Amino acid sequence: MPRIGGTIDPMDDATFWRELGQQLRVDSIRASSAAGSGHPTSSMSAADLIAVLLANHLHYDFDRPDDPRNDHLIFSKGHASPLYYSALKAAGAITDAELLTFRRLGSRLEGHPTPVLPWVDVATGSLGQGLPIGVGVALAGQRLDQLPYRVWVLCGDSELAEGSIWEAFEHAAFNKLTNLTAILDVNRLGQTRETMHGWDLDAYASRATAYGWHAIEIDGHDVAAIDAAFTEAAEARDRPTVIVARTKKGKGAREVEDKEGKHGKPLENPEEAISELGGVRSLHVDVAKPEGDSVPHKFEPDDAVAWPRWGPADKVATRRAYGDALTALGAERGDLVALDGEVSNSTYSEEFRHAYPDRYFEMFIAEQQMVAAAVGLQVRGYRPFASTFAAFLSRAYDFVRMAAISRAKICLSGSHAGVSIGEDGPSQMALEDLAEFRAVHSAVVLYPSDPNQTAALVRLMADHPGIAYIRTTRGALPTIYGADERFEIGGSRVVRSSDADEVTLVGAGVTLHEALKAADALGEQGIAARVIDLYSVKPVDAETLRQAAEDTGAIVTVEDHWPEGGLGDAVLSSLAEVENVRVRKLAVEIMPGSGTPAELLHEVGIDAEAIAAAAQELVRAPAG
Amino acid sequence: MPRIGGTIDPMDDATFWRELGQQLRVDSIRASSAAGSGHPTSSMSAADLIAVLLANHLHYDFDRPDDPRNDHLIFSKGHASPLYYSALKAAGAITDAELLTFRRLGSRLEGHPTPVLPWVDVATGSLGQGLPIGVGVALAGQRLDQLPYRVWVLCGDSELAEGSIWEAFEHAAFNKLTNLTAILDVNRLGQTRETMHGWDLDAYASRATAYGWHAIEIDGHDVAAIDAAFTEAAEARDRPTVIVARTKKGKGAREVEDKEGKHGKPLENPEEAISELGGVRSLHVDVAKPEGDSVPHKFEPDDAVAWPRWGPADKVATRRAYGDALTALGAERGDLVALDGEVSNSTYSEEFRHAYPDRYFEMFIAEQQMVAAAVGLQVRGYRPFASTFAAFLSRAYDFVRMAAISRAKICLSGSHAGVSIGEDGPSQMALEDLAEFRAVHSAVVLYPSDPNQTAALVRLMADHPGIAYIRTTRGALPTIYGADERFEIGGSRVVRSSDADEVTLVGAGVTLHEALKAADALGEQGIAARVIDLYSVKPVDAETLRQAAEDTGAIVTVEDHWPEGGLGDAVLSSLAEVENVRVRKLAVEIMPGSGTPAELLHEVGIDAEAIAAAAQELVRAPAG
Repeated sequence: MPRIGGTIDPMDDATFWRELGQQLRVDSIRASSAAGSGHPTSSMSAADLIAVLLANHLHYDFDRPDDPRNDHLIFSKGHASPLYYSALKAAGAITDAELLTFRRLGSRLEGHPTPVLPWVDVATGSLGQGLPIGVGVALAGQRLDQLPYRVWVLCGDSELAEGSIWEAFEHAAFNKLTNLTAILDVNRLGQTRETMHGWDLDAYASRATAYGWHAIEIDGHDVAAIDAAFTEAAEARDRPTVIVARTKKGKGAREVEDKEGKHGKPLENPEEAISELGGVRSLHVDVAKPEGDSVPHKFEPDDAVAWPRWGPADKVATRRAYGDALTALGAERGDLVALDGEVSNSTYSEEFRHAYPDRYFEMFIAEQQMVAAAVGLQVRGYRPFASTFAAFLSRAYDFVRMAAISRAKICLSGSHAGVSIGEDGPSQMALEDLAEFRAVHSAVVLYPSDPNQTAALVRLMADHPGIAYIRTTRGALPTIYGADERFEIGGSRVVRSSDADEVTLVGAGVTLHEALKAADALGEQGIAARVIDLYSVKPVDAETLRQAAEDTGAIVTVEDHWPEGGLGDAVLSSLAEVENVRVRKLAVEIMPGSGTPAELLHEVGIDAEAIAAAAQELVRAPAG
Repeated sequence: MPRIGGTIDPMDDATFWRELGQQLRVDSIRASSAAGSGHPTSSMSAADLIAVLLANHLHYDFDRPDDPRNDHLIFSKGHASPLYYSALKAAGAITDAELLTFRRLGSRLEGHPTPVLPWVDVATGSLGQGLPIGVGVALAGQRLDQLPYRVWVLCGDSELAEGSIWEAFEHAAFNKLTNLTAILDVNRLGQTRETMHGWDLDAYASRATAYGWHAIEIDGHDVAAIDAAFTEAAEARDRPTVIVARTKKGKGAREVEDKEGKHGKPLENPEEAISELGGVRSLHVDVAKPEGDSVPHKFEPDDAVAWPRWGPADKVATRRAYGDALTALGAERGDLVALDGEVSNSTYSEEFRHAYPDRYFEMFIAEQQMVAAAVGLQVRGYRPFASTFAAFLSRAYDFVRMAAISRAKICLSGSHAGVSIGEDGPSQMALEDLAEFRAVHSAVVLYPSDPNQTAALVRLMADHPGIAYIRTTRGALPTIYGADERFEIGGSRVVRSSDADEVTLVGAGVTLHEALKAADALGEQGIAARVIDLYSVKPVDAETLRQAAEDTGAIVTVEDHWPEGGLGDAVLSSLAEVENVRVRKLAVEIMPGSGTPAELLHEVGIDAEAIAAAAQELVRAPAG
């Protein structure tokens, strides 16, 4: 593999790798010192590992980061960003001047890597996420692209305390991801103290081996050993490889090497350390480009599958309509893939699973790995729909948060929302998911109340340039929309209205149907009620809500969700600057238990009766 | 150990255990059939394990569930609730009539167990949580109570895919929790298919052994083997034990035994199955009571530690004030304990760690295990304060959600909130935590802006009968309150006001100080602005906000948080039924990068300049 020494030449491979490692250390120190913050010591421990990887094993065209044949390099220990950026400089992707903009306002070199840089697949910095995301990229390589690229993930030893790492170990072995190599930088020291296992490499290797990985223990500063380990990893059959490398944090600088209390801060005497490390260098490493001319496999559309349609007599759960629509969309679009947390017969992603087993990923009961895999799959341009009970998506909230920073395009479906699931009880009821997903940047939050609408929204989700969340319902709901009606992200639907409306009822999903019943009851009492289906909870259709405020002056919102952060708050937010409107928010205020759906809707005060009563009160007794 | 056969007597131990197992199966079927839903087959697989545990190993006084000497039995596989409730019946804790109220509205026997029942420590039903919570209870036994009670956790095999389970394996071994036994019901079948490992008991045992556990593989329907395994577990030294039991889902009923597609539904022919199982029984198992008269260790208060006080000249980060106050409160209260996710020098829980090492729990980078351990510790009456970066508490959101269902009393501290952390970038910035915790039942959300206030709020948190969340800030803030000022959960503070106020500015934490600067600037332009410190974001001081709405008619809210679900939404919610007020919500609308705190506050539009501009616009150009 070609590589070129810059200022110092010619030199043998090992000398070059060592020199390159020193350069990465020096540049990590320089970048952190220029910034006045950052993690030089966590960069220095892994410098030799990354030097040898760049020089002799990585296949990556820095001029064409979108080349599908490229390897993928993920810094799961995102705080080692100085090392990553120093590697970019050594590879010629960025200049030394840009390196020194590290952590400045407007710089692409953020405190932790993000895809603002074209070579970064995903944002890291929340520990324990890079490896499970790497599993997703490796799954794309193995099962979708069917290309021989490799996925290299640099992990810290501290982050192996995250359970999500072990979800990744489990899934990588189960799927025989030979294309995945984890590089474990065992520098022994965490932020405040020694890790649980210190330099006990066997502790990591024995766990990895038990999970079914190939484990190689090395001295992470011995470039020949590193080189041999990478070669061995590439040759492993039937299993992923972890290289367990004993390293020293702050390696090469007396001020910090293997010392506690040196985490996450620039060196006090950077010049002295740079001098110890042999001074500033400007070696260039000519990273090998991907070989061959293979192209990604394409999954072809299937024209034979018809889009689902429901008639007015159909009562269908929106979760089932989700499965039907996803399957139909999967026929149109070969880039669509589905994942599920081993509840596919509840979320109805099983329909997709049956139709396209090649594009379905069973993630078992591992929601963090499920969302991480979705993020990894979209790195390669696939459009993942990941589903489980909405309540259990909360398990992966940090992954969704980070997915937004990754600018990831993923679709999430949460079924079994709210007390309307009935007997299973509160552990299975999502009552916070609207708040959860509203507070995610780039996210849209959809909550359909009818099967045709669900199907239309599923189609829209697949083109949303961010995170798209859909909340579905366990029980069957009446079909109230035609199969050809159009809906939009940010839209709403006035389901009932008249010139005489005195009050507006706003619901979505199961509560829309309760609102319709309430409107009937109010009508019998001579109160005309407008009913709005707020199927897009974020963004919200402010215009329609403002019109309703102006027309009726009184709004009742009702949601199968805690009172905070959900549909009611979305409505209030859209009316923040509107005067002359009173809004009453109905939501789940007490901890529910078990019961039938109807009993529970009544018990927590979000059924038609409660809505009608609230509307009546609001209309008949205006605030002073 | 005493046990008594009921209708059938006398019988030898093994016969009794087998008969009891059959009774638990029959009753699981009866309860599920009466409910019309539930998980009989997942109950039947573990029936023999629970029968032998109850009859010969558990020490528990069902008449005195609060006896500190009691063992703890946690059903991590909470969907096996029919088995749990059947065991309660066999032990005489509930009647057969109550058993048949399973899943009905108002019944204590919810779909998944909750502490509505006095014998249930914690709610389960979100898989992978019972074992990490059991680690917390076992830590309490080992390090705090210093009592010999045992913690028994029944796990399903499907839930071993959850990373949180492996965080628990790691922590239990690291802490040498000999008092913890995991009982793994390897029934092979998940909800839709076989698990990753089927009946490969070695797959589980080898992982557990690699983590440092003692593993025993048995036939989970061989009562003698079960009995021997429990005995062996109790005798293990220096390590926890996992009993890996090969079982059959639906064991004993041809209709369902070891069959796919039989998860989570009542039997079609329950009478036939009951007959196969030998019919209805009413055996009573006399569960052994705890022995000895030992009492829990008490940590004594230390009068020598003074409450922290800051003067007007002090600039102090609220995270530091948190650490100071926690340490002072720890001196007063021996029941106070602290946990941290290996960032104690960032959250300042390190002060508590140094002062009371016996009451500090290092949870390393395992936030799920951290919150789970907190829940486990409060089971035994301790008051845990768990801290990490606020952003990383999102990792444990499902655990917080379930903690609310557990009626747990825990305190959580999230540091490094918002863009004001500066250079580290968005992965480290909590921008959704207010939304996250507002949408948790029983939770209060506190966001102090001054060290004296922080200390006062820490004291209040420790008595909150639910989940108390405090959001702290990285950077130093001016001291604006006296050391003896009083604050309250649900309170706010009007920091500046006059009769001429034309607009109200509402902030908290770092944005309160920006609001104060904005008020100065507005004053210079002849606009009098009221400033409210909304330090209690939930519950919110509606009265003060309504008064401000009435007095000024215009409110600007400002928060270092995404626009959704946070402080602004809390304000709007409190004013939902108030007319004649316009609210403008300032929040973080764009994805931040790195920069200095001041640069970023400006960049995202939540600094004094942005606040003043918004207020001016609102005052000078009223809406039509």
